Amino acid sequence: MLNHEIYNLDKTCAFLKQHDNYIILCHFYPDGDTIGCAFALCRTLQKIGKKAKVQCAHAFPDKFSYITDIVSIDEIDEPSAAVIAVDVADPKLLGDLNGVYGERTELCIDHHFSHVEYAKRLLLDSDAAAACEIIYKVIVGLGVEMDKDLALALYTGISTDTGCFKFSNTTAETHRIAADLIETGIDSAEINRIMFDTKSRPRVEIERLALDSMQFFFNDRCAVVTITKEMRESSGCSGDDLEGITGLSRSIEGVIAGMTMRERDNGTYKISLRTHAPIDAAAICKKAGGGGHVRAAGCELSGSAASTRDIMLAYIKEALDTLIDN
Amino acid sequence: MLNHEIYNLDKTCAFLKQHDNYIILCHFYPDGDTIGCAFALCRTLQKIGKKAKVQCAHAFPDKFSYITDIVSIDEIDEPSAAVIAVDVADPKLLGDLNGVYGERTELCIDHHFSHVEYAKRLLLDSDAAAACEIIYKVIVGLGVEMDKDLALALYTGISTDTGCFKFSNTTAETHRIAADLIETGIDSAEINRIMFDTKSRPRVEIERLALDSMQFFFNDRCAVVTITKEMRESSGCSGDDLEGITGLSRSIEGVIAGMTMRERDNGTYKISLRTHAPIDAAAICKKAGGGGHVRAAGCELSGSAASTRDIMLAYIKEALDTLIDN
Repeated sequence: MLNHEIYNLDKTCAFLKQHDNYIILCHFYPDGDTIGCAFALCRTLQKIGKKAKVQCAHAFPDKFSYITDIVSIDEIDEPSAAVIAVDVADPKLLGDLNGVYGERTELCIDHHFSHVEYAKRLLLDSDAAAACEIIYKVIVGLGVEMDKDLALALYTGISTDTGCFKFSNTTAETHRIAADLIETGIDSAEINRIMFDTKSRPRVEIERLALDSMQFFFNDRCAVVTITKEMRESSGCSGDDLEGITGLSRSIEGVIAGMTMRERDNGTYKISLRTHAPIDAAAICKKAGGGGHVRAAGCELSGSAASTRDIMLAYIKEALDTLIDN
Repeated sequence: MLNHEIYNLDKTCAFLKQHDNYIILCHFYPDGDTIGCAFALCRTLQKIGKKAKVQCAHAFPDKFSYITDIVSIDEIDEPSAAVIAVDVADPKLLGDLNGVYGERTELCIDHHFSHVEYAKRLLLDSDAAAACEIIYKVIVGLGVEMDKDLALALYTGISTDTGCFKFSNTTAETHRIAADLIETGIDSAEINRIMFDTKSRPRVEIERLALDSMQFFFNDRCAVVTITKEMRESSGCSGDDLEGITGLSRSIEGVIAGMTMRERDNGTYKISLRTHAPIDAAAICKKAGGGGHVRAAGCELSGSAASTRDIMLAYIKEALDTLIDN
């Protein structure tokens, strides 16, 4: 049985001075935050004379190469190395590395409210918009000078996890940390261009097809996007390319219920419903056997695109009718 | 002959205490920054016992109503009122109000590098990402407490003028001011949702048509979007709805020359070229009689969509070929 100890910043900094070798783990399907954390922490440990390397179950996407370049690879003494997981909310998210390192994880630094305890020591701040905010504090706590390379990594994690300071997880502290990082002289606009203003060809193609498929109902208060298996295949898009596509229909002026229907390989439809107040997305999806949050919910239905859509439209109509009556 | 005096923050604050009545002018086609500045300044003046009102040559778009609601309308003594322009880089941008107030402008507060002096007194900070950053400092300078309503207005100006902290005008100070504003308790995510994640129906339609029109050339290093008069008409889109559409083609992975061709009412094509390093957009457009910046330039050509496109493609090919040779 593992003994989970809640760590604060001081204890974390002390732990980072105790060992000579460190292995830092990212979560699989690595994003800007886990990569930013891992490489910033790796560089920080190297700056205080430690040997450190970063491991991840999946390859790092090319667009993050300016981050993975900020460290040189150390030869690590594997058996004696202390294992640290960053931005990893659940050991399952280590992917294939879970079997190798999961039970050896000495410290986890994370910001997920839904964190599942697994590491021997845990530094958790669920108010942090990004785990990179916590790593920023660790670096300050260790007295390591914030250089441009560290700032590049940390800024990327903060910017990507907040949708460029757009999401509700962004706090005053998020902005203050961003200010300190920008002061090192990094080109934040270039980072944001790479992260937010670059689309893959398949993404552009699936967006085009999604827009082509869009249908409006109930005086344009409901918009429906349908993405069939055939559309996914013809566009060549992968799961990553579909990220954020469920927000498209709700973003249209006047739409208060935006539905996205995605045909799965098994022929069922995965339905994502995004609403504006006062429409309760979870209540609508519950009627179809699903659930979720009040403005973002989902369910899964079998049948043709048209019949599946009509089932959902009936539930959505009920919700819209209530609105008119009140 | 007017006497233009360069003002600093202290002098500006002193000026704002001197008069009893103030008229605050926005630029025409008002955006988040000029509206944020005007209403924040109006409310600030009212808080220190002055009478103030905001004027603009155009109506304020509905989406800014949460800002225009932060002041109650004062009865102003027009003849004795001091006129202040905010975020107005040139008196022409006052539109129809130029004739009425242009020569009466006692003070202008602006952040445009390209500012054309016209007001008797000028507080200019071209390092400020938004004029709202300067108004923030004025409010602090006057010792007026930053309340939630002021913060709503100022945050909107800063967020919209920086593309939500994405553009290169964003500085460490921009983030620090945003932090102070968020600390008043405003819902910054909701502001950003309204400003960045809401699209008009015509905008969605013109995006769909633009994506449908997209063609790729030269091993997908060049993408061309064509927006005909017919497309504009069928989508019902206005000039506003086309904002940012010229960035679409360049944002695609692998594209280093993105061209957008817009058919004008007179049948000519307005061409916008956006490039990535090292392609010189201005040099290419210069060959077609246009000009601009190194990564964003334009020109205008007569002829059919196909012939116009082919003329530009020949110039683009020359630039891409040079690239391969080197």
